[in-house]
Amino acid sequence: MNQEIIERTVYLVSDSTGITAETFSNAVLSQFDDTIKFKQIHLPFIFSIEKAKEVVSRINQNALDTGNQPIVFSTLVNHEIMNTVRSANGIFLDIFGTFVSNIEQLIGHKSNNSIGRSHNVTNTEKYRNRIDAINFSLSHDDGQFVHQLNQADVILIGVSRCGKTPTSLYLAMQYAIKAANFPLTPDDFERNTLPSTIIPYKNKLFGLSIHPERLSEVRNERRPNSSYSTIEQCRYEVTESEKMMRRDGIPWLSTTTKSIEEIATTVLQEIGLNRRLA
Amino acid sequence: MNQEIIERTVYLVSDSTGITAETFSNAVLSQFDDTIKFKQIHLPFIFSIEKAKEVVSRINQNALDTGNQPIVFSTLVNHEIMNTVRSANGIFLDIFGTFVSNIEQLIGHKSNNSIGRSHNVTNTEKYRNRIDAINFSLSHDDGQFVHQLNQADVILIGVSRCGKTPTSLYLAMQYAIKAANFPLTPDDFERNTLPSTIIPYKNKLFGLSIHPERLSEVRNERRPNSSYSTIEQCRYEVTESEKMMRRDGIPWLSTTTKSIEEIATTVLQEIGLNRRLA
Repeated sequence: MNQEIIERTVYLVSDSTGITAETFSNAVLSQFDDTIKFKQIHLPFIFSIEKAKEVVSRINQNALDTGNQPIVFSTLVNHEIMNTVRSANGIFLDIFGTFVSNIEQLIGHKSNNSIGRSHNVTNTEKYRNRIDAINFSLSHDDGQFVHQLNQADVILIGVSRCGKTPTSLYLAMQYAIKAANFPLTPDDFERNTLPSTIIPYKNKLFGLSIHPERLSEVRNERRPNSSYSTIEQCRYEVTESEKMMRRDGIPWLSTTTKSIEEIATTVLQEIGLNRRLA
Repeated sequence: MNQEIIERTVYLVSDSTGITAETFSNAVLSQFDDTIKFKQIHLPFIFSIEKAKEVVSRINQNALDTGNQPIVFSTLVNHEIMNTVRSANGIFLDIFGTFVSNIEQLIGHKSNNSIGRSHNVTNTEKYRNRIDAINFSLSHDDGQFVHQLNQADVILIGVSRCGKTPTSLYLAMQYAIKAANFPLTPDDFERNTLPSTIIPYKNKLFGLSIHPERLSEVRNERRPNSSYSTIEQCRYEVTESEKMMRRDGIPWLSTTTKSIEEIATTVLQEIGLNRRLA
């Protein structure tokens, strides 16, 4: 028995980058199972009536071609532009509208209806902190630069390829967290002590670990058939690193089944860092 | 005349990372002006009734302490957990609910109500592409590794400190785009030609530029009072790089007033790259 596949086009229409529309759309559409294929089309920077009219043409053409009304997720704020896009032959979903009205009622204060404010703030201290954090995390990746570790908000530690680098960069990029990272290596396990460089910053350390099988897979993709990638080596390093973190009372988590976002969120929670951008 | 400042606590409650709730909340709240202070409190990983009850206590306590009902943005999916949190003394805004129902009606198909799917996909090809892209962009930052440039989806070029590195990392992190970047230096301007390494990949090049005054500010933060940071040097480099990009027909944009998100979105649009994660 063939299961019917339902296909629908989803337009993400925004007056700015469309990143909020995209995050929102991904989350809402992931609530549906694989028998429904959503084709997302991004239409950012729709900040004029002229552009809005082009959007209307595209939506109408799609409805004609597919025989189905497409879904339109809108984060448009300007009423004139929104009403133009709303006139197209699609199911128009105004992502902000309902919630902004709710909050206006609650606080008895009107919103600005200003365009694209959330990703348009380059000249603020927050934005500079974020760029600084990215530069910090880059230069303090993999223990390559050991000065200014006192400025780190967190220092991620763990064996090679357990997820330290993407997590550090994500923390910096999204939350302006100065996240350094430092590898735990076989040398450290032989000496049976944390790398001396990071011992003074023990209260900033957070450990990442990973199942040895998964680690071996990841390392094999990078260096196939090396002794570095064998399951024995991976088991040894993971066991030793977890032993070390437990002994030294360093909080840690396993990254095996976690996405960058899940690891980063957990790190933030565990070490109680405020989200600087919020 | 003093303008009254309105303060409100906003809880972001999610069964997963809360990143969607956060992006959404930042966008909606940025529609209000500075006379309203929203204090956002992140409560991720609320995946049990027990945790939901703790959330209720926190919200109720806040309502008591402040004398105002807090705003609760929820991306909870499980009905039992949602109804528990909804019972708290706050204004409960169900971010997904309305839209999921709309789409269910439209396509005649029920959603899964499954928890935290959008940031919980580590073992998929998409996720691996993303990690690969991050590693690629890191190793191809600032022209440091010139092999495998043929695998790049885009190569950003421009003078030192014009925004290439954060943009490359953002493209990789968010969209699994393999974004290399390569500096244009005074040497290139003297030779009056693009760096020979990147000439074979001309169709992948995208240029970033910046106002000389802003560039001088950024460089001065990094290397105060150096010849590298003088306004004269910055004017020279910016003029020459723009001349080179124009002459060689390379698309480019000015980053001066643009956030990382705005630059990345524009690059994606201009070079017509599909968003691999979408």
